[in-house]
Amino acid sequence: MTQLGTLYVISAPSGAGKTSLVKALLAQDKQVRVSVSHTTRAMRPGETDGQDYNFISMATFDAMIDKGQFLEYADVFTNKYGTSRLWVEKQLEQGMDVILEIDWQGAQQIRQQMPACTSIFILPPSNTELRKRLTGRGTDSEEVINHRMSEAMSEMSHYGEYQYLLINDDFDATLQELQAVFAAQRLKLAPQQQKHATMLAELLSA
Amino acid sequence: MTQLGTLYVISAPSGAGKTSLVKALLAQDKQVRVSVSHTTRAMRPGETDGQDYNFISMATFDAMIDKGQFLEYADVFTNKYGTSRLWVEKQLEQGMDVILEIDWQGAQQIRQQMPACTSIFILPPSNTELRKRLTGRGTDSEEVINHRMSEAMSEMSHYGEYQYLLINDDFDATLQELQAVFAAQRLKLAPQQQKHATMLAELLSA
Repeated sequence: MTQLGTLYVISAPSGAGKTSLVKALLAQDKQVRVSVSHTTRAMRPGETDGQDYNFISMATFDAMIDKGQFLEYADVFTNKYGTSRLWVEKQLEQGMDVILEIDWQGAQQIRQQMPACTSIFILPPSNTELRKRLTGRGTDSEEVINHRMSEAMSEMSHYGEYQYLLINDDFDATLQELQAVFAAQRLKLAPQQQKHATMLAELLSA
Repeated sequence: MTQLGTLYVISAPSGAGKTSLVKALLAQDKQVRVSVSHTTRAMRPGETDGQDYNFISMATFDAMIDKGQFLEYADVFTNKYGTSRLWVEKQLEQGMDVILEIDWQGAQQIRQQMPACTSIFILPPSNTELRKRLTGRGTDSEEVINHRMSEAMSEMSHYGEYQYLLINDDFDATLQELQAVFAAQRLKLAPQQQKHATMLAELLSA
């Protein structure tokens, strides 16, 4: 299988701005798609099957695990969440870049399955700013906010496992950094050779 | 020795626009310096010692070779040209990025000495365009131009040894690509950890 696209794994604690950054990137870059996870949890009001998640039964999920059809999957409480290998591989073959928004545990699975992936971690600029972002509209209890902080700290402790590190102090600047990582990746030898195959053959044959 | 900066090796055939691109990059990026080669050839009118080249005697050059003070060097006809290891390492330690504008043979020596270097090859968009650029003001003989084309073809045949490939069809677009490679390099884990050491320690200690 020839993979023309690049697989990106992007992780971050809640409050780092990952989802907004990825959304802004997608709006400007038509060569990138985000993977939609499969899940066994029930669809919630306002969600669309195939858009927010691919909603499947536990039996179907387990059968997919047995057939090795997930690049990564996780048990979260009583539900399962996973990334379809088939969908990702199909996008990459078509020359699309694929973003997986997953946590450090999923990222570890992906690195094993797809060693050529590019991994990016996004951090908030400070604890104070992180707590502010996790406090939200101020309607949650101190206990709930502390729990979110603790989960964020746990996720952040794995930033050193990633190839790229972005610090989201200023949204527009961080978006530009994200775009630079994608731009540079496309300038590497292999993708450039694939993109300019005809031109290169002509140039070097004279 | 802690090297904070990145060493870049940039190669291209004559006519690809390498020198102009590097000059434009330097004008906008104060964290980058270009290495000035040492040479045994005589200074020409209009040249400045230490700026165009470091002009040294053959005896001094040979002594530097013996002491391993060149990262790479080459014999070109009766003269020698080399890149000072000491100067490059000092820049990198100070956090400067260093560009070496050298040919594929120098690049091979650098990869052996400094495996962490980032290598970029710049190609012209076509043979027709290359010949046009090498023809210049039209005052040179067909034979001279054919010789330049042949040397360019020889250099270009090594583009596959480099990590990044830029095709200089449009100057401004290629300059942006070059800047994206430098920007992405600085977003890698190690340079970001060094740049944001205090902030990271604070963020992860809470």
